[in-house]
Amino acid sequence: MPEKIKVVVTRQLIPEAQKLLESEPNLEIIQWHNENPCDRNWLLTNAPNSTGILLTLSDKVDTELLETAGPTLKVISSFSVGTDHIETSAVKHRNIRLGYTPTILTDAVADLAVMLILMAQRRGGEGIRNVLDGRWPQMPWSPALMTGPQIGGSVVGFLGFGRIAQATVKRLVPFGVEKVVYLTSRPGERAREDYFGLLRDQPVSIEPAGSWEEVARESDIVVVACSLSESTKHLVGTEFLGMMKKEAVVVNIARGPVVDTDALMKALDEERIFGAGLDVIEGEPNITADHPILRQKRCVLVPHIGSATFNTRMGMAMESVRNLLAVLRGEEMVNECVL
Amino acid sequence: MPEKIKVVVTRQLIPEAQKLLESEPNLEIIQWHNENPCDRNWLLTNAPNSTGILLTLSDKVDTELLETAGPTLKVISSFSVGTDHIETSAVKHRNIRLGYTPTILTDAVADLAVMLILMAQRRGGEGIRNVLDGRWPQMPWSPALMTGPQIGGSVVGFLGFGRIAQATVKRLVPFGVEKVVYLTSRPGERAREDYFGLLRDQPVSIEPAGSWEEVARESDIVVVACSLSESTKHLVGTEFLGMMKKEAVVVNIARGPVVDTDALMKALDEERIFGAGLDVIEGEPNITADHPILRQKRCVLVPHIGSATFNTRMGMAMESVRNLLAVLRGEEMVNECVL
Repeated sequence: MPEKIKVVVTRQLIPEAQKLLESEPNLEIIQWHNENPCDRNWLLTNAPNSTGILLTLSDKVDTELLETAGPTLKVISSFSVGTDHIETSAVKHRNIRLGYTPTILTDAVADLAVMLILMAQRRGGEGIRNVLDGRWPQMPWSPALMTGPQIGGSVVGFLGFGRIAQATVKRLVPFGVEKVVYLTSRPGERAREDYFGLLRDQPVSIEPAGSWEEVARESDIVVVACSLSESTKHLVGTEFLGMMKKEAVVVNIARGPVVDTDALMKALDEERIFGAGLDVIEGEPNITADHPILRQKRCVLVPHIGSATFNTRMGMAMESVRNLLAVLRGEEMVNECVL
Repeated sequence: MPEKIKVVVTRQLIPEAQKLLESEPNLEIIQWHNENPCDRNWLLTNAPNSTGILLTLSDKVDTELLETAGPTLKVISSFSVGTDHIETSAVKHRNIRLGYTPTILTDAVADLAVMLILMAQRRGGEGIRNVLDGRWPQMPWSPALMTGPQIGGSVVGFLGFGRIAQATVKRLVPFGVEKVVYLTSRPGERAREDYFGLLRDQPVSIEPAGSWEEVARESDIVVVACSLSESTKHLVGTEFLGMMKKEAVVVNIARGPVVDTDALMKALDEERIFGAGLDVIEGEPNITADHPILRQKRCVLVPHIGSATFNTRMGMAMESVRNLLAVLRGEEMVNECVL
């Protein structure tokens, strides 16, 4: 009789994914059974002699965890699109394989990008607040009342042009976008991947920008869709915002620190740009009710709900279990992170 | 020297439209010069002997106004998409021609329909409120946190299938809609107009529904886009909402009374539907802060901003001036309301 293989799971899973996990007969499953994020000490206590760990973005993967788990550890399966919580060099150094779920949330995040663009342009947050605060009866109709820019005829600039950005373009085309420009880590060069045939078909002009200045100056809508790195941190800062058009909006669906919050607040205060829509922000989730960004009526801020759809979360759970089981069974992962 | 032609204008116009109006040499322009809606007594005092009146949806056109203006009146040009404020029979009876601006706001309203669908599905209003009220730091990440349905794979049902509804379909297709059903005043019959070639090309299945019950039962997203009449008043009421799917949302971009507010609140209270997005509501704009709909966190309500974009409002102003001048010059109106 073969020895049981120990796996540590730092989350409750949805029933379908739990069932899939338990369908593997030889597993000893050690699981965190609380709705709150997994306690670090619990994880360190249970990691030794495990073969696999399934965890989420609230669990840090560092040398301490890997050393504690010991040489039996073969696979980390992360229930996340990003790997910011993982010291990938430490994982690589130990020949541990890393799975994640990068593609399944594309539709959910691209949908949210469109929502935030529309809310920033059409003053969605301001409109809701006017109604909630009982101001509607005192808003006599006038031609300029609550007006904003619209997507039709606009230039949309992307910082980063991966799968989510391209899925956003796909959605925006029938709104009447005039042109798309994008900046990648290779300014001026055509994007390598063409996920939906948009670069080939060119339903509208879609061209690489030579510099971030070009994106800032040309765009009516700026969508931040790049990963966070030393070179993208605060990329949308005082200089960038200062070059933007007065009626332009900026939307961040990537990582908070790509946008310099102080610079954004100043640009909104001085009405140098029209509005902003943020799914992420520096210092999240510790944004208290007295945070000055919340006084900006032209800034819409939602609590990092990019991937928050039923389909996506179910898909992420299933895929993270599949990634874990694949390594244990010697099969290919659905999505393996190349280290 | 020809006598001056008197026209009454109940609004300040944007500069471009004002310039166009004043470019007509023989006009005596009597204009309301205040940001508030035009005073009724002022209008009645100035209407006599006018040839044309340019007015907005806050000015009622009834027998009293037409009688007061007298037999010189040839044209009413309304700066509006709707004609609810106009007794059209009284206008027709006197052979007065009626201009309005029905098509120019299609893009702006269809954009807003998409915004409201996304906000209703993705809990946009609830997300904003959670952040504003300082609850984000106490929202530990979990797979089900703030999740909602998504457009991909959904059936979208339209009540009314005119230009705005079809422009909304055009936008929704690349989000991955599976099927569109629509109800017109001729249930089961194909829509007569195919504004964007969608019925011909069928980028997804687009079929007429045989009844409102079919729309209610099949749809994941219901979009109210019909005109208000005896037969559409409270069409979305207790029965309709009771037949909807538990994870479905309803969006109203048409006229408030098509949706029965009390029935909607009850359906939301009992979680019989997932959410709602409203640009219009019964009794608007007199929605005070204590209105019970505002306690519904799954209901997004914005203050009738469907046409509120710079482009649209500028276009409406220009077109209403053009409609007025066309009749005075014996030319064809841009948009004449067939009475």
